[in-house]
Amino acid sequence: PDGAARAAAEARNGQLTKPPGALGRLEDLGIWYAGWRGDARAQVTSPQVIVFAANHGVAARGVSAFPAEVTAQMVANFRAGGAAVNQLARTFGARMDVHSIELERPTADFTTGPAMTEAEVVAALAIGWNAVDPASDLLVAGEMGIGNTTSAAALAHALFGAAPTDWVGRGTGVDDAGLALKARVVGEGLAANPGAAHDPLEALRCLGGRELAAVAGAIARARQLSIPVVLDGFICTSAAAVLERAAPGALDHAVAGHVSAEPGHPRLLAALDKTPLLSLGMRLGEGSGAALAVAVVQAAAACLSGMATFAEAGVSDG
Amino acid sequence: PDGAARAAAEARNGQLTKPPGALGRLEDLGIWYAGWRGDARAQVTSPQVIVFAANHGVAARGVSAFPAEVTAQMVANFRAGGAAVNQLARTFGARMDVHSIELERPTADFTTGPAMTEAEVVAALAIGWNAVDPASDLLVAGEMGIGNTTSAAALAHALFGAAPTDWVGRGTGVDDAGLALKARVVGEGLAANPGAAHDPLEALRCLGGRELAAVAGAIARARQLSIPVVLDGFICTSAAAVLERAAPGALDHAVAGHVSAEPGHPRLLAALDKTPLLSLGMRLGEGSGAALAVAVVQAAAACLSGMATFAEAGVSDG
Repeated sequence: PDGAARAAAEARNGQLTKPPGALGRLEDLGIWYAGWRGDARAQVTSPQVIVFAANHGVAARGVSAFPAEVTAQMVANFRAGGAAVNQLARTFGARMDVHSIELERPTADFTTGPAMTEAEVVAALAIGWNAVDPASDLLVAGEMGIGNTTSAAALAHALFGAAPTDWVGRGTGVDDAGLALKARVVGEGLAANPGAAHDPLEALRCLGGRELAAVAGAIARARQLSIPVVLDGFICTSAAAVLERAAPGALDHAVAGHVSAEPGHPRLLAALDKTPLLSLGMRLGEGSGAALAVAVVQAAAACLSGMATFAEAGVSDG
Repeated sequence: PDGAARAAAEARNGQLTKPPGALGRLEDLGIWYAGWRGDARAQVTSPQVIVFAANHGVAARGVSAFPAEVTAQMVANFRAGGAAVNQLARTFGARMDVHSIELERPTADFTTGPAMTEAEVVAALAIGWNAVDPASDLLVAGEMGIGNTTSAAALAHALFGAAPTDWVGRGTGVDDAGLALKARVVGEGLAANPGAAHDPLEALRCLGGRELAAVAGAIARARQLSIPVVLDGFICTSAAAVLERAAPGALDHAVAGHVSAEPGHPRLLAALDKTPLLSLGMRLGEGSGAALAVAVVQAAAACLSGMATFAEAGVSDG
């Protein structure tokens, strides 16, 4: 971030026509945004929502309430503008892009070995990297992939330890037996890929998926471009966590958009020391929670950039 | 609300391309909005933010960190577009109106008798009633008035009992001595106006203020027009609570936009059985928290009205 812009934003915030601190979290958020954008009066005018979609070999283990063909069907729905994230992106003026990554070629089942080869994970990271529009000023990286809450749970388990049961949840809606199966599959995943416990990028390759790698690649690219990021739910955050574990501070340009109803998400956010902006019981993925939180960042930047100072408005300062 | 529209909205929600319940609170919110608008696919296209401003005799007791002339200065700031609520209204496409109510004539100090005469409170209620644009489709009623957290605390104390210390907070920023003074003044207020404890509208007249009465009038008018309301913070909610205590169910068309950092607000929301949409530590008033929450209602309505169904999108349904 730009220290001078951040300092100028802090100074400006202290002069705006409101009691000190009265905008609560919006004040810190606006200053954070200004610092990363290098402009004390930065506004959010060009947010970008990208949805990455891919398929998972582990879906064959029956870990999802929906069949694997739903990934491709939902990609068509994203392209036609019919999904939740489309409505949210449109409501808040975000550009939306969809990247469907080799849906006909699922990753390998990670309970039998690595989900991806080195070449495959690098290709997926590059897709994410190249998907970010350098002209955008706020990024949401969403995902779609039947089976990917299981992949995210395995990734979180490798990155942060704890028990598989601490990281699994009902995803799109599995029953108690499905939930127990997911925990078993997560444990088998780490057992089959022991190197994943010691190297975050190896964890991404062995237990992640193409859309998770693309999310990580996009978030890394946003950092290089000084584009702030709004993290979505459990799956997006697990992919982002790879970056933070590989290089502490790698997510300083990212804010947690919301906390999902998927039970592993609050645990993951705590491990990353991120406090969510919203808590509305959402658990859809697609970038939907983050796309809604774009509104909060827009609001914070609008207040910091647009409000009058006490001097400008002729208001007595306390 | 329109039972048929609500039922149609519920049925539609169940067919949209997402796992059941995956949009969390947005789903109930969208259905609630559709029911009040009488349209299963209602969208929020014309929100209205109204800020009512007035002065309080009790300010002379030294209960605020800011001098009373700030009310008029902030009215000028609202009109010039420089306040926080202006930025928020603009960001989410809301029309904004400002009603300055006899600033040169503060209410009487309620520690010595009723704040308003019958004629005065009725006039203020009517200003609120007439301020609502019948063509709007979502209402935020905000307020500005130096001293009005003390008035709101006195009103909450009269309406819901408990101790004065349970309802007072630091407002725009009083110190510990100021906080103790506010509690004392609230206790004196109810002692000087014993009828306020037994009649909600009498409580509004004796302990409220012109802007609080206008907020109540606007919320009542919105009910008559089937315009859903987003409640703001402590002061707005205390005015709204008058309606609920006078006629249980009178706030069924209102949702709590946020929970304020002012400590009486969570207590007041609990008494009204309202769960806030946002919790961001805001405590500015002006309608600012509610204006931000307009974005959440817009999002909920956009998802319910705009998403494709499983059948429309050709997506397999679980």
